[in-house]
Amino acid sequence: MKSSVLSLIRAGRDTRGTQQLNPPRLLIESFLSLIVVGGCLLKLPFATEIPVTWLEAFFTATSAVTVTGLVVVETGSHYSLFGQLVILTLIQLGGLGLMTFAVLTLLALGFKLGLRGQVVTQVAFNEVTLTTAKRASKSIALFALIAECIGLVVLALFFVPERGWANGLYYALFYAISAFNNSGFALSGDSLSAYVSHAGVSLSVTALFITGGLGYLVVMEMIQKRSFTRLSVYAKIILVTTLTLNLVAMTVFLLLEYNNPATLGALDSITDKLVTAWFQGTTPRTAGFNTVDISTLTAGTSVLFLLLMFVGAAPNSTASGIKISTFVILLAATRGFLKGNLRVNLFRRSISREAVLKALAVTTLGMALVFVGVLSLTILVKDDFLDIAFEVVSAFGTVGLSRGTTEHLGAAGQLIIMAIMLIGRVGPLTVGYILTMRSKSQIRYARTELPVG
Amino acid sequence: MKSSVLSLIRAGRDTRGTQQLNPPRLLIESFLSLIVVGGCLLKLPFATEIPVTWLEAFFTATSAVTVTGLVVVETGSHYSLFGQLVILTLIQLGGLGLMTFAVLTLLALGFKLGLRGQVVTQVAFNEVTLTTAKRASKSIALFALIAECIGLVVLALFFVPERGWANGLYYALFYAISAFNNSGFALSGDSLSAYVSHAGVSLSVTALFITGGLGYLVVMEMIQKRSFTRLSVYAKIILVTTLTLNLVAMTVFLLLEYNNPATLGALDSITDKLVTAWFQGTTPRTAGFNTVDISTLTAGTSVLFLLLMFVGAAPNSTASGIKISTFVILLAATRGFLKGNLRVNLFRRSISREAVLKALAVTTLGMALVFVGVLSLTILVKDDFLDIAFEVVSAFGTVGLSRGTTEHLGAAGQLIIMAIMLIGRVGPLTVGYILTMRSKSQIRYARTELPVG
Ligand SMILES: [K+]
Ligand SMILES: [K+]
Repeated sequence: MKSSVLSLIRAGRDTRGTQQLNPPRLLIESFLSLIVVGGCLLKLPFATEIPVTWLEAFFTATSAVTVTGLVVVETGSHYSLFGQLVILTLIQLGGLGLMTFAVLTLLALGFKLGLRGQVVTQVAFNEVTLTTAKRASKSIALFALIAECIGLVVLALFFVPERGWANGLYYALFYAISAFNNSGFALSGDSLSAYVSHAGVSLSVTALFITGGLGYLVVMEMIQKRSFTRLSVYAKIILVTTLTLNLVAMTVFLLLEYNNPATLGALDSITDKLVTAWFQGTTPRTAGFNTVDISTLTAGTSVLFLLLMFVGAAPNSTASGIKISTFVILLAATRGFLKGNLRVNLFRRSISREAVLKALAVTTLGMALVFVGVLSLTILVKDDFLDIAFEVVSAFGTVGLSRGTTEHLGAAGQLIIMAIMLIGRVGPLTVGYILTMRSKSQIRYARTELPVG
Repeated sequence: MKSSVLSLIRAGRDTRGTQQLNPPRLLIESFLSLIVVGGCLLKLPFATEIPVTWLEAFFTATSAVTVTGLVVVETGSHYSLFGQLVILTLIQLGGLGLMTFAVLTLLALGFKLGLRGQVVTQVAFNEVTLTTAKRASKSIALFALIAECIGLVVLALFFVPERGWANGLYYALFYAISAFNNSGFALSGDSLSAYVSHAGVSLSVTALFITGGLGYLVVMEMIQKRSFTRLSVYAKIILVTTLTLNLVAMTVFLLLEYNNPATLGALDSITDKLVTAWFQGTTPRTAGFNTVDISTLTAGTSVLFLLLMFVGAAPNSTASGIKISTFVILLAATRGFLKGNLRVNLFRRSISREAVLKALAVTTLGMALVFVGVLSLTILVKDDFLDIAFEVVSAFGTVGLSRGTTEHLGAAGQLIIMAIMLIGRVGPLTVGYILTMRSKSQIRYARTELPVG
């Protein structure tokens, strides 16, 4: 399976003018179509309770399709039930669509799905039979449906007694879909702050978004293999890193916020503090819900969040960011280099040169996008620098947490954040592929030595 | 010259307990010794006009040896002539010492110096004869001496008429050494702000620090080959990137500061604006002098500076940062990957896999250091986030520009900044080598495929 991603790029590239698929372009075009249709639907008179502008409608649609959750108008009060159902549909299509697309792409590249013993290897993208693709898509849809149904039932146990049948079930449905898809959309302006001391809601919502952020492949493997040692290296990396990042983030959050009167300091019981730290420690890796006011976090916690938001969760999931595997490869390659080892090893397996270069490219493009975004917004918006950097990284990781800058973006700023959310969700590489598809240089040059660092 | 850096690492590693050299450890130990001796000398009663604490003396010594230029006490008013000469000596040893060390290391690794037709290839570090090392060291010292003498003469033309012979010559000497070594140390608290409209001083100082930032190898090649096309790929990259970054930085500075009443807006003539933009556009890549108050720059310009300070100038020079070649390799590898090319090409030459991994490692460690530094300082210091981030990146790139946070660091903050300056100057890889020298794992593992991004 050497040069797997390259073969995909070439597949995309060689097909211009033919009837074959061009996956990066297809992905971006489907997202753009969803945004256009969604934006128009949200602008319909009966979609809103309080009228929204075209820009606000399109910002909402972009935020929903990219499962970000940054909002310029409060979802619960501005959009009618119809509008909210449009948003939910966009979230479901955006979250599930990308995961399906990514899994189908991997399948096409010969990644072993290992479902019911079925192993597809080394086939070109257009050789994936419609049957295989349909079967995988159905499995993924089923995965989402089951997870969301469990979420709905559990959340209903908490919401129905509190809000009655109709409203309680609707809340449960909304948050089940929103959480599983890591969308961060909420019905209240303060997200889930009303449930800061509600362990049931807090833990159910985190369970949903962590499951979505692990992605279909990892969850399927867990269900089928039921033993950590038998898992693939990929699944091991995703699980270990997810758990590590969550626990580290929770601990640092506890330490930095323990005495902050606006956050953990306001909670009496140690259980409440622990639940809140867990919620806030897990949410920056692209879920984007909050039970405390993000703008009241200490600067230290906000800096920690910047890293978590940039990293994100698993590839092929409902989450974004540069992804856990990219982050781990960067660390492993660095450690390997320091030890004098040019091979990058993880869990006693060697990582291909291509994956290392991909990690480098994804990170470089991600950093470049964040840099350009922060530079533009600091010129356009007069907010505090930390708040602006937070907003941009939140958009890139399609997280949706905000320290308040979303309200001050202005038209140009909103368009910039919309672009960053879209690129962040489809992945900077996808956009990069399209921009560099013109030429195909494979000339071999002589080696040169170059002092570095 | 395959695995050149690795052979160096191994050379260092295999020698523990023997009499051979361990370059990374040697480098750090010599810097630490210089700092200890320098700190003690600066604490002597006759070294100061206004007494300094031990911490202030050691902060000054660290800043001087690492050619950073961040100061907790004003150099001109606090230190006596003796103290200032100690600082100048530390700057000269720190700036020149690292450049010499780096060039000797390259020489040892078989990098073609191409001096007088002399080509040394593929020799181990300990096989560099004392004669070769002495000859190279002499050439480098001569390079510095000539550049600084020219600087002294030219600067004396401006300073002597203004300040008389004794003081004018001393100013010229101080700034010639300080600028060539990219040290950023100044005799006034506002750096060279008095000369904001003085094209002569501004252009001489930039010429000195740009020359120092190109490094010995590049300048020697330019002198010997006198034709761009005949230069090595390394020299071409350094020259083209230096010019590009300087011109881009100057242009963006002009655009963002043109109407800022505290900076360019205060200058009447277009020439003054251009000279100031050139000065401020070139100084963030580790020179660290300023002719306008850095704390009055717009947020946009400060964000631009963050990137320039992180990148720095050439390896094997008086400058720091991740280095121009690292930055260029990241961009080239990303572009190559997007074009479906796993070979990284620059100027029609292929870059070794090792250099790419080194660039990845340097950048990852640099980002990690900056992240930890920013996180710690935001917890310790209550300054604006932009000012804190600026301070940390400035220390990492041994730049010395500050938006004012240096004064509010406190003891713990000062120790953190001292550590960052030291690691930034010797290079995060050097520190990393020492920390990972325990084990040497070269086990070959089976390949695995890993979805990334
Ligand atoms: K989100
Ligand atoms: K400096």
